[in-house]
Amino acid sequence: MDSKYPRSVRCCLPRLIVILEVIFILLFFFYTSYDMSSKDQRKLLGNYRALQDVTVMAVLGLGFLISSLRRHGWSSVAFNLFTLAFGVQWAVLVDGFLNPASLNEIVIEPSSIQLATVSAISVLISVGTVLGKVNLVQLVLMALLEVTAFVILRVFGKKWLDMDNHLSLMYVHVFAAYFGLIVDWCLSKPLLEEAKEKDQTATSTSLFAMLGTLFLWMFWPSFNSALLDLTNERKNAMFNTHYALAVSTVTAISVSALSNPRGKINVTHIHNAVLAGGVAVGASCHLISSPWISMVLGLVAGLISIGGAKCLPVCLNRKVVIHDSCGVHYTFGLPGLLGGIAYIVQMVLHASWAGDPMIGYQALIDVGALSWVMAVGMVSGLLTGCLLKLKIWKAPHEAKYFDDQTFWKFHHLASGF
Amino acid sequence: MDSKYPRSVRCCLPRLIVILEVIFILLFFFYTSYDMSSKDQRKLLGNYRALQDVTVMAVLGLGFLISSLRRHGWSSVAFNLFTLAFGVQWAVLVDGFLNPASLNEIVIEPSSIQLATVSAISVLISVGTVLGKVNLVQLVLMALLEVTAFVILRVFGKKWLDMDNHLSLMYVHVFAAYFGLIVDWCLSKPLLEEAKEKDQTATSTSLFAMLGTLFLWMFWPSFNSALLDLTNERKNAMFNTHYALAVSTVTAISVSALSNPRGKINVTHIHNAVLAGGVAVGASCHLISSPWISMVLGLVAGLISIGGAKCLPVCLNRKVVIHDSCGVHYTFGLPGLLGGIAYIVQMVLHASWAGDPMIGYQALIDVGALSWVMAVGMVSGLLTGCLLKLKIWKAPHEAKYFDDQTFWKFHHLASGF
Amino acid sequence: MDSKYPRSVRCCLPRLIVILEVIFILLFFFYTSYDMSSKDQRKLLGNYRALQDVTVMAVLGLGFLISSLRRHGWSSVAFNLFTLAFGVQWAVLVDGFLNPASLNEIVIEPSSIQLATVSAISVLISVGTVLGKVNLVQLVLMALLEVTAFVILRVFGKKWLDMDNHLSLMYVHVFAAYFGLIVDWCLSKPLLEEAKEKDQTATSTSLFAMLGTLFLWMFWPSFNSALLDLTNERKNAMFNTHYALAVSTVTAISVSALSNPRGKINVTHIHNAVLAGGVAVGASCHLISSPWISMVLGLVAGLISIGGAKCLPVCLNRKVVIHDSCGVHYTFGLPGLLGGIAYIVQMVLHASWAGDPMIGYQALIDVGALSWVMAVGMVSGLLTGCLLKLKIWKAPHEAKYFDDQTFWKFHHLASGF
Repeated sequence: MDSKYPRSVRCCLPRLIVILEVIFILLFFFYTSYDMSSKDQRKLLGNYRALQDVTVMAVLGLGFLISSLRRHGWSSVAFNLFTLAFGVQWAVLVDGFLNPASLNEIVIEPSSIQLATVSAISVLISVGTVLGKVNLVQLVLMALLEVTAFVILRVFGKKWLDMDNHLSLMYVHVFAAYFGLIVDWCLSKPLLEEAKEKDQTATSTSLFAMLGTLFLWMFWPSFNSALLDLTNERKNAMFNTHYALAVSTVTAISVSALSNPRGKINVTHIHNAVLAGGVAVGASCHLISSPWISMVLGLVAGLISIGGAKCLPVCLNRKVVIHDSCGVHYTFGLPGLLGGIAYIVQMVLHASWAGDPMIGYQALIDVGALSWVMAVGMVSGLLTGCLLKLKIWKAPHEAKYFDDQTFWKFHHLASGF
Repeated sequence: MDSKYPRSVRCCLPRLIVILEVIFILLFFFYTSYDMSSKDQRKLLGNYRALQDVTVMAVLGLGFLISSLRRHGWSSVAFNLFTLAFGVQWAVLVDGFLNPASLNEIVIEPSSIQLATVSAISVLISVGTVLGKVNLVQLVLMALLEVTAFVILRVFGKKWLDMDNHLSLMYVHVFAAYFGLIVDWCLSKPLLEEAKEKDQTATSTSLFAMLGTLFLWMFWPSFNSALLDLTNERKNAMFNTHYALAVSTVTAISVSALSNPRGKINVTHIHNAVLAGGVAVGASCHLISSPWISMVLGLVAGLISIGGAKCLPVCLNRKVVIHDSCGVHYTFGLPGLLGGIAYIVQMVLHASWAGDPMIGYQALIDVGALSWVMAVGMVSGLLTGCLLKLKIWKAPHEAKYFDDQTFWKFHHLASGF
Repeated sequence: MDSKYPRSVRCCLPRLIVILEVIFILLFFFYTSYDMSSKDQRKLLGNYRALQDVTVMAVLGLGFLISSLRRHGWSSVAFNLFTLAFGVQWAVLVDGFLNPASLNEIVIEPSSIQLATVSAISVLISVGTVLGKVNLVQLVLMALLEVTAFVILRVFGKKWLDMDNHLSLMYVHVFAAYFGLIVDWCLSKPLLEEAKEKDQTATSTSLFAMLGTLFLWMFWPSFNSALLDLTNERKNAMFNTHYALAVSTVTAISVSALSNPRGKINVTHIHNAVLAGGVAVGASCHLISSPWISMVLGLVAGLISIGGAKCLPVCLNRKVVIHDSCGVHYTFGLPGLLGGIAYIVQMVLHASWAGDPMIGYQALIDVGALSWVMAVGMVSGLLTGCLLKLKIWKAPHEAKYFDDQTFWKFHHLASGF
């Protein structure tokens, strides 16, 4: 676990981050203040609970979900915590600057921390695709750019395409997955020894990844209902997410064996596919009025996720040279797309049942929102990827080192830079 | 971890489960709908929190509690999640069909998912006794039968013996423990190499079992108060459970060393006995009016549980050939019986203080309820055990394999079927 | 893991604890009763949630935080649970006797369990300093004395120095850290082989310690706002703790590399330093009116904590012979002092802005409160340390054994006494 950096770079990295942190504090000093109006205690506590559930998902769920592949899982958990703590501060600032409530002051409300946490979650999801290919400075840069891109997506999506906060929260999976895949594509080189390394997943870290999965599973109903205001919508969202997750779990565990020629259940499939139902039902969970619809979504999401895990790595590795080390594409990308399509169909059906004359326009807006999310994700991913590929982020020694042994690099960076 | 099944069976199992899942979706399509009346948000959120705490106990607590014995703990955690997700769906349906609110429609309320989760928990407890002796199809069959039996117990207990939801929830421990033990008795063969295998408990998986125990310990007050409606009853239930757990923890940890000839603390004792207080205080926790009563219950429960763990395995293994691999009998069975007796005594004392003329009738009803729970548990356990013993659930190759090496079978099934 | 005690001592220990437990039950029988007035359900549930969050922090957070150094982590987790369960019962009694609401009856309210849990947490923090140097009887004695001292601190601090419950809760870190350090100083002997042993931290237990850290990190906002009554104060406390933790996390992870000559991140630094922000912001978290102040506190706390971890062990081990095995001094002690000073400055500034003529008196009271906390902690620590050093707590055989190999002793005691 020796550091591969020359001394100058090693000392430079922490200083850079402390300087960034001081800049953040100065920005907070000049531009922010707390919302001092006394709110309803019930609402405040409810909001705080929802925020806490989302934090548990981000810190424990996503942190331990990506820990299974590593030789030293603790560093990926620590880096996940770092990225969250860093991303939330930046997201509060960007959100405030692009959404100015008053003239030159950002007023911080409970909901603004919630929105900032969701923005930071987009980075945590994307990190799964580039794990092992970036160093800490690149990670900080990626967090800054991705949070900015996601806040731009949300602000202009609200202005132009009538996307409410719930919908942009639900599209975070699609955005983050494609952002990460494109960044990954920019950084990737063909890998050979990766398959061997992957098999080294130890029993205990595999149990930790299971722990992460279970935390995500349990708190997903809170996540899907976190930004809804009406009681009935929250109730529906919780119920539907509950059913979708139950069905996708049963499907994933039983189909995983079918997809393997020797009939084994695959650990990685389980870690990812049981969550597919929650992702797929997200966008429309407050609108669905019978449990069977969310159960069908859960079934289809489970099948797509297992199918993707079986077929995609082979195709993508061979043809497009994307190496998605943590299965972000089939855990968040594909089920998120399914959820977006389900939402569009649902909205069109609702409009046609209500005899809405604007049905065509409505459908166009909804398709536009999903395309906007994909477009922003891909374009900002491409920009970020190109920026991260510049040689200036690497020390001279290290640049050479990267060419030989890309996959486990992150690791050494995490253990000592 | 090679699969011992012939190819036909391996392919058949997942298909069977997917077909069952599709049947569930069809039943939900034809017979269920959400409760659309707008409820009080405060009550809804409180209910959801209680449901979430129970889910945490089921998924993390029971999942990791049984993971300590296994060589590959993750598969027992995954199977626990599978059983819960599968059992909840079936329980909602059975509950609805036996409790028809309207003519041919099941209306799904927040409380119905809570009741269904409790019914599914009965399966999770019973699984601890048969771990290593059943394959996945047998597990699914057992889940279907046990959930049905428990819902029948609850519906007819309510109709005939005036058992409210809280009481039947608290008797779930007794029901599940004796159901599991009888099924185990039907399936058991004398074992020889088991003692050796048991010692292989690794440090890290033992910490995971500790994690499961801690989650159960922390959320037990929520579990015991989950189905109570009155504020004062909930408060009492939480307080009494808190004190009973504290005393049973102190008792269990100190007495565990006494029971060992060389003065060591036994890991397995701790995992199970610290929870005995919560089980014992369950049935009467909302009625107890001073902390010392629940503390005495906790003390007695801790002693019984450690005593049972010390003496029962020897007696039962030698005389009745029951092999209770996870200590379900002395964690849930005996403390649950103690709790039932404490409840009956409490009710009789209350009636005699109040000068109730119906005191004898009341006592009869209460004894009847406990006997009814034991009877349903044992009879349905016997039926299930006989059904599971039929040769049709085993592939030809496998039938032979079972005779040799029963104990670690579950394992191979979990890893690959 | 053989027991080093002679048979008489081994049998005596558990009996002693069971007898203590019976005495507790008798005290509860004669002196306590539940508060039977029907409270507002909303408040009750809110209180219960806050209590549950604090319990999660005590059981999981502190339990797993100290598990990283051990060869058999589960025993330190079990002992943590034992100390909590034991300490809470004693704290309820002492609190009741020193705070008599009515003549000869202690009325147990939701808030009394909360206060008792906080008192027990002081023991859990101090245990980190003496881990490996005390046996179970000494631990029980220490719990009895420390809880008594902390309740005395709180009761007389309220009477003489106008300390409210929130403030004494926030000073628990300072009290517990210096109590533990003084006890440790009384018990310590120079150690040689310790450095070698420390490096044996295994990957999986290190992940468990990370899990403990994360639970503390996530629930710290609940802890800091647990004893506040006003809505606005709770909201401010949550926000400020959130920001302080975020900044101290970013600082700790980046500076940890700077402090190492070879540029590595230190696992132990991370486990402890990310929490420093929450400790430092505690005392004044409900008063701070802009995020930047708590961010600055978080930054300074992170730097102090890492700096302390780097310099203090060397100084203290050489000069004063204190061996702080779990880093309690720089996790809780120094950031807690920083928080106390920040609180005093804040109060003086508030008073001077308001043009308060009593400003000097106010400052004196605030400085007095912090000194009172330190004084009680140190004096009671000295008393406890001298008492624990008496030979009567050790069996003859063992007394010799302690001289040779002090550090890993706790361990054997935990595994078997």
